[in-house]
Amino acid sequence: MPDSQPNRPQLAASGTQMNIKFLTTGGTIDKVYFDARSEFEVGPPQVLEIVKDARVTFEYEIESILRKDSLDMTDEDRNLIRQRVEIDACARIVVTHGTDTMVATARALIGIPGKTIVLTGSMQPARFRVTDAVFNIGTAIGAVQSLREGVYIAMNGQVFNPTRTRKNLEENCFEEA
Amino acid sequence: MPDSQPNRPQLAASGTQMNIKFLTTGGTIDKVYFDARSEFEVGPPQVLEIVKDARVTFEYEIESILRKDSLDMTDEDRNLIRQRVEIDACARIVVTHGTDTMVATARALIGIPGKTIVLTGSMQPARFRVTDAVFNIGTAIGAVQSLREGVYIAMNGQVFNPTRTRKNLEENCFEEA
Amino acid sequence: MPDSQPNRPQLAASGTQMNIKFLTTGGTIDKVYFDARSEFEVGPPQVLEIVKDARVTFEYEIESILRKDSLDMTDEDRNLIRQRVEIDACARIVVTHGTDTMVATARALIGIPGKTIVLTGSMQPARFRVTDAVFNIGTAIGAVQSLREGVYIAMNGQVFNPTRTRKNLEENCFEEA
Amino acid sequence: MPDSQPNRPQLAASGTQMNIKFLTTGGTIDKVYFDARSEFEVGPPQVLEIVKDARVTFEYEIESILRKDSLDMTDEDRNLIRQRVEIDACARIVVTHGTDTMVATARALIGIPGKTIVLTGSMQPARFRVTDAVFNIGTAIGAVQSLREGVYIAMNGQVFNPTRTRKNLEENCFEEA
Repeated sequence: MPDSQPNRPQLAASGTQMNIKFLTTGGTIDKVYFDARSEFEVGPPQVLEIVKDARVTFEYEIESILRKDSLDMTDEDRNLIRQRVEIDACARIVVTHGTDTMVATARALIGIPGKTIVLTGSMQPARFRVTDAVFNIGTAIGAVQSLREGVYIAMNGQVFNPTRTRKNLEENCFEEA
Repeated sequence: MPDSQPNRPQLAASGTQMNIKFLTTGGTIDKVYFDARSEFEVGPPQVLEIVKDARVTFEYEIESILRKDSLDMTDEDRNLIRQRVEIDACARIVVTHGTDTMVATARALIGIPGKTIVLTGSMQPARFRVTDAVFNIGTAIGAVQSLREGVYIAMNGQVFNPTRTRKNLEENCFEEA
Repeated sequence: MPDSQPNRPQLAASGTQMNIKFLTTGGTIDKVYFDARSEFEVGPPQVLEIVKDARVTFEYEIESILRKDSLDMTDEDRNLIRQRVEIDACARIVVTHGTDTMVATARALIGIPGKTIVLTGSMQPARFRVTDAVFNIGTAIGAVQSLREGVYIAMNGQVFNPTRTRKNLEENCFEEA
Repeated sequence: MPDSQPNRPQLAASGTQMNIKFLTTGGTIDKVYFDARSEFEVGPPQVLEIVKDARVTFEYEIESILRKDSLDMTDEDRNLIRQRVEIDACARIVVTHGTDTMVATARALIGIPGKTIVLTGSMQPARFRVTDAVFNIGTAIGAVQSLREGVYIAMNGQVFNPTRTRKNLEENCFEEA
């Protein structure tokens, strides 16, 4: 059993502490039920609870940029997200987002140098007993530290190129376009 | 907004259906409680339920090779796992395994050409309400489709090179060695 | 250690099989999230899944009478529920209902002889990871087999007389009026 | 719609604040998994978390008397539990206990005047995603405020007289003996 691998894995240089930035924008993943108002709205970001339960050991920061249903996202919102990504010192960024217009926002983030950006979200809120939220955040984390710079979408267990992706509304899943 | 990315992401060629093989070997991730015997033992693989709840859209097969606590793994067991990986037609393989000797098994899988192999497991059983199992399977899935050939460990939200990794028994987490 | 109790507990006569009827009418307890429509609506009754996970050994039937938010309940709806209860052969009936007008419906069921009727529901949908639904169904089950005939409300861990109960909208809980 | 019920429900007198004492003794309900030791042991009482998630509005205290597998319970342990119940000022007491010898302990509590005592536990630990723990605590709460003084067992959705109950080891459930 050799103690080194001829094919060096493409991971962060040995010894460097991995750092991930989470930018949250809303979407189904963060929806909360307010019984008093019989309303179901975007609430505080759930990604914090997810990474804590997962006992992650990388350094991270979570910044809530927006709390919107992605159907309500505007070009101004997308510009805001792009600016936040551009100025961020972190090289690895996970953006949580509603699924309906995730592709549009991902496309708006193309061309930012020096950053690996992965967008994800979920079809069932993170607060549900059965949810894809935890798995999807995990997939995004695995992808963001393994891929070279560029923008990606992580949904349904797959990593997509946003220029060739769409949300299939009938099947309610993401697929290559 | 350009509709193509100059930096082509390194994903599977457009149009190819992604295929992942899961080889399960036991470990805490699959532990079940048998009240009748007051015993807590490795049970049927939980990864099936995890990928179903996650609504994954890639093709996959799950094969249960062993159902062992990883402290009980022998060299023969590791040879068995290596052989199963070598003969598998699939290029992307996720191995679920107990955490105690995951590094040893990962090292025993070094040098198999043409395959991206990611080992993962969990500190809390998948059947628990609060568990790292779902997140870890997600991380492994994100990594296995993003990394080039080689062997990796996905635990605590990080992707490790097994030749430079150990399980810190005091902190109960994985770290660079 | 005596093998009999001087104070005979008031339980069903020894040897009789306990039989409970569940009549479901909707409410928060059964709300489901439909991602495709970004809508949160009353879905199929969750009480079935709850009693199965609880491994109950009594005989039961579940009948879905309505699937309404209780704010949308009308006097006609309440008459329907009363009729269904009156004609039911079962002596122990649990009615799941929205919390907003549970007291009104309970009062509409007063005076039906020979039946113990307990209304319950939940503030957080049963499909949520953190929910009062399972506990409340349990409380209703414990109450319905222990109380003599009449109508009761089981919420917030308490069994109430509906003629002296109200839902406190500010505190979002039930209390004696 | 009358605003009073001829058959007065047998609930606590109007205006009195309900008070429940929880005495925890261990058992499967409180089992925790310690990955570092690959061990599955009785941990801190889970009933606190259960009643908090259930948003109960009654007053309660939780006292941890023992942390034992009920197969390890001795007559001394049962005497200890009986003494604690006898001296307690509270009239409504829920005892959480392992299921294997719950009947024996219940029988040891017969004959304590002025108290309604309900024993419960669970077949699957409260920390599991699928568990009977929450439902059973709910059933015990519904029963303890509805029954007159005496000792009862609440398991599998039924309230049993401990002098005529046994745990069916094959079926892994409680039944009338």
